[in-house]
Amino acid sequence: MTSSAADGLGVVETHTARVFDAANPLVLASGAVLPQVDVAYETYGTLNNERSNAIYICHALTGDAHAAGYHVGATRPGWWDNLIGPGRPIDTDRWFVVASNILGGCQGSTGPSSIDPRTDRPYELNFPLLDMADFVSVHRGLARHLGIERFAAVVGGSLGGMQVLQWALTHPEDLDRAVILAASSRLTAQNIAFSAVGRQAIMRDPDFHDGRFISQGAFPGKGLSVARMMAHITYLSEEAFQEKFGRSPQEGELSPNFGVDFAVESYLEHQGQRFLSRFDPLSYLYLTRAMDYFDPFSRDGALDLLVADPVRFLIMSFDTDWRFSTAHSRRIVRHLEGARLPTSFREISSPWGHDSFLLEIDDYHASVRAFMDRAAEEIA
Amino acid sequence: MTSSAADGLGVVETHTARVFDAANPLVLASGAVLPQVDVAYETYGTLNNERSNAIYICHALTGDAHAAGYHVGATRPGWWDNLIGPGRPIDTDRWFVVASNILGGCQGSTGPSSIDPRTDRPYELNFPLLDMADFVSVHRGLARHLGIERFAAVVGGSLGGMQVLQWALTHPEDLDRAVILAASSRLTAQNIAFSAVGRQAIMRDPDFHDGRFISQGAFPGKGLSVARMMAHITYLSEEAFQEKFGRSPQEGELSPNFGVDFAVESYLEHQGQRFLSRFDPLSYLYLTRAMDYFDPFSRDGALDLLVADPVRFLIMSFDTDWRFSTAHSRRIVRHLEGARLPTSFREISSPWGHDSFLLEIDDYHASVRAFMDRAAEEIA
Repeated sequence: MTSSAADGLGVVETHTARVFDAANPLVLASGAVLPQVDVAYETYGTLNNERSNAIYICHALTGDAHAAGYHVGATRPGWWDNLIGPGRPIDTDRWFVVASNILGGCQGSTGPSSIDPRTDRPYELNFPLLDMADFVSVHRGLARHLGIERFAAVVGGSLGGMQVLQWALTHPEDLDRAVILAASSRLTAQNIAFSAVGRQAIMRDPDFHDGRFISQGAFPGKGLSVARMMAHITYLSEEAFQEKFGRSPQEGELSPNFGVDFAVESYLEHQGQRFLSRFDPLSYLYLTRAMDYFDPFSRDGALDLLVADPVRFLIMSFDTDWRFSTAHSRRIVRHLEGARLPTSFREISSPWGHDSFLLEIDDYHASVRAFMDRAAEEIA
Repeated sequence: MTSSAADGLGVVETHTARVFDAANPLVLASGAVLPQVDVAYETYGTLNNERSNAIYICHALTGDAHAAGYHVGATRPGWWDNLIGPGRPIDTDRWFVVASNILGGCQGSTGPSSIDPRTDRPYELNFPLLDMADFVSVHRGLARHLGIERFAAVVGGSLGGMQVLQWALTHPEDLDRAVILAASSRLTAQNIAFSAVGRQAIMRDPDFHDGRFISQGAFPGKGLSVARMMAHITYLSEEAFQEKFGRSPQEGELSPNFGVDFAVESYLEHQGQRFLSRFDPLSYLYLTRAMDYFDPFSRDGALDLLVADPVRFLIMSFDTDWRFSTAHSRRIVRHLEGARLPTSFREISSPWGHDSFLLEIDDYHASVRAFMDRAAEEIA
C-alpha cells in the first residue's frame, strides 16, 4: 500500500490473537483466573529488524482496536486517524503501531459477553472484576505474541492514559516513553458519581435481567443510551456545547414538547442511539468500575520500579476538560517529578473539553510530534 | 404560638385554595385553558392591617409549599426554615410570608397527575405545556385569594428565582422588591442537556407507558431515580463532593462490585430513592421543560413595564455553583442595569455549589437580612 499524509493509511484490518490459553491462563490482580483471552488488534507501519520502532496505543472507555486507517468499505476512519498515519505525529512511515481492544471490552477482545470455555455460556456477571493491571497484562500478552520486547512509546488518552501510567509503574522495562493525555491517577467523588449514575441507568433497565440479559435474549439499550447521553455531557466543555448548539431549535421553530426540541437534544439522542450498535452494557460496567478503583500512587513503593528504570513522560491536559481537569494531570506530574522522573507537562488550550484528545489541535499534535521525533533520534 | 429565633416557627400546616375555576378558568400563555386550579400554600407570621408586609416565596424544581416550620409530628422542618422564621433573615415577627406549591407540581397544587374535571381522569400528558408566565399567573391567583395586592418582596432560588424574574418583568406593580438567588434568565446548551437526559431516563422507563402510567397503575420510579441522581451531581460543586465523600468506601473496606462501594454512591442512591416517595415523574417533565424554554430578555420590550414601575433587585450567585454559575446571574444584572433598574449583585463564596441557596451561609443570609431591613424601613 502506498500512502501519503493526505490519504492516511488507507485500508486496514483487525486481527485477533489468543494471548492466554489453558496452558497459560491469565491470573488477574484479584487472583481470579481467565482460562482464555483473545485480543483484537491492528498494526500500522512496519516493524524494523531490531524490533525497536514499536508504539502501543491504549484506547479510552469506548474505543476499540481500529485506531487509524479505513476498514474495507468504511466511510469513517479509525478513531485516532488524525494522530496516526504516514507523516502524522505518530508517523507510520517510521513507527510500527499496535492498537488493541481492551480486556473486558466488546470489540473483539475477551470481555463479559464472551463465552466462558468452562461453561460454553456467556460470562455475563460471572466475569471477574478487572483492575488496571489486568489491562496491562493483556497488552503485554499481545506484545509477546507479536515478538516485541520493548516499546519506544506507549500512548493513550483518558482511560487509555491510565493504562499507560499503570504500565510504566509496574513494567517500566517494557517502554522508553509514555504519553498520557487527559487522564487521571485517581477519580474524584464527582467522577465516580457520574460513573455510578451511568451504571445505575443500565442496571435499573428491566432488560438488564440482573446481568443475564444475553441468556434472556434481551438488551438494556434504554439504560445504556441514557448512560451514554449523560457521559457525553461530561466529554464536552460547557463552552463547546454552547458554541455547537446554543439554544438552537432542532428544526424550524421551537414548539415545546418532551421530545427533541433543541439541537443539543438531537445530538445527545443520536449519540445515545449510535452507541447501542457498538457497545455492550456489561463492558460499560466493568470498564468504568476499573476506573473508579484506579489509585496507583496510594500503594507503598508505587514508584520504586519506575525510579530504577526511568521512563520519559509526556503528560498533557486540556484547559476546558472538566471530566479530567488539568488538576488530575498535575497530580500525576507531581508524583513523577517528586521521584525526579523525566516529565514534560503541557496544558493545551482548547475549547472542546475532554474530547480534545481525539481532535486535531495544533499545539497538542505539535507536542506529540516533537516528543516522538526525540524518540526517533534515540533509536536511530 | 410563641416562638424565638432558636425554636423557629413551630408547627405549621398546608392549606389548599381553588384560585381558578369554571367561572374564572386559567388561560395559559400558550392559549390552553385549565378549567380549575388548586394551590397548596402555607403562611407564616401575621398580615398587618395595611396588608403591606407580605412576602411571597417561590420554590425551586422539587420544592413545595412547606418552606418553614414543622408539620405535626415531623422531625425535619420546611426546606427554607433557616431563612424564614422569627428573627431569621426573612423575619416572621415582621413579615407575613406566603409559600405555595408551583402549578404543574405534585405537592398539592394542580399538575399533570391531577384529575381533569372535564374527563374525571388524570391529565397525564394531556396537561398543557407550561410557561414561566403561567407559574406567575397562579401565584397572582393565590395573592388575590388572600387579598394581597402588593408584596414587599418576592423571593426565590433557582427555578424559584426564574419565577421572581418573570413576575417582576410582567407584573412589576405586584412587588416592591425581588430576591433572585442562583437563577438564570436562559439555560445554556449544557443546562438543557442535563434536563434532557433526566427526561429521557424517565420516558425510557418501560413503566412510563407513554405517559399513561397512572392509568396503567405503574410508576417509572427507576427512570425518575436515575434522573434525580444525575441532577444531584449538578447541585453540588466538585469540591463539595470531594469534601463530603472523597473516595471513602461505603462501609469498611472496598470490595469491588457494581453496587454501592463508595460513600458517594450510597448518597446518590439514597437521594434517588427518597425522591420517589415525594415526586411525580410528569411534574419533572413539565417543570424542567418550562425552565429550558425560559428566555424572557429575548422578547422585544421585555423591560418596558419594569422600567415604568421599577422593582428593587437583589441578585446573588455562589462562586462554586456550576449549574447556574455566576455568569447566569451577571447576565440578569447586565440586562437590569442596562435599563438603569436599582440592582444589587453579590457573588457569595461558598464551597457547596448550587445547593448553597438552601444552606445557612453567613454572607448570604446577612445580605438577605439587610435587604429585608431596608424593605421594612420603607413600609414603616
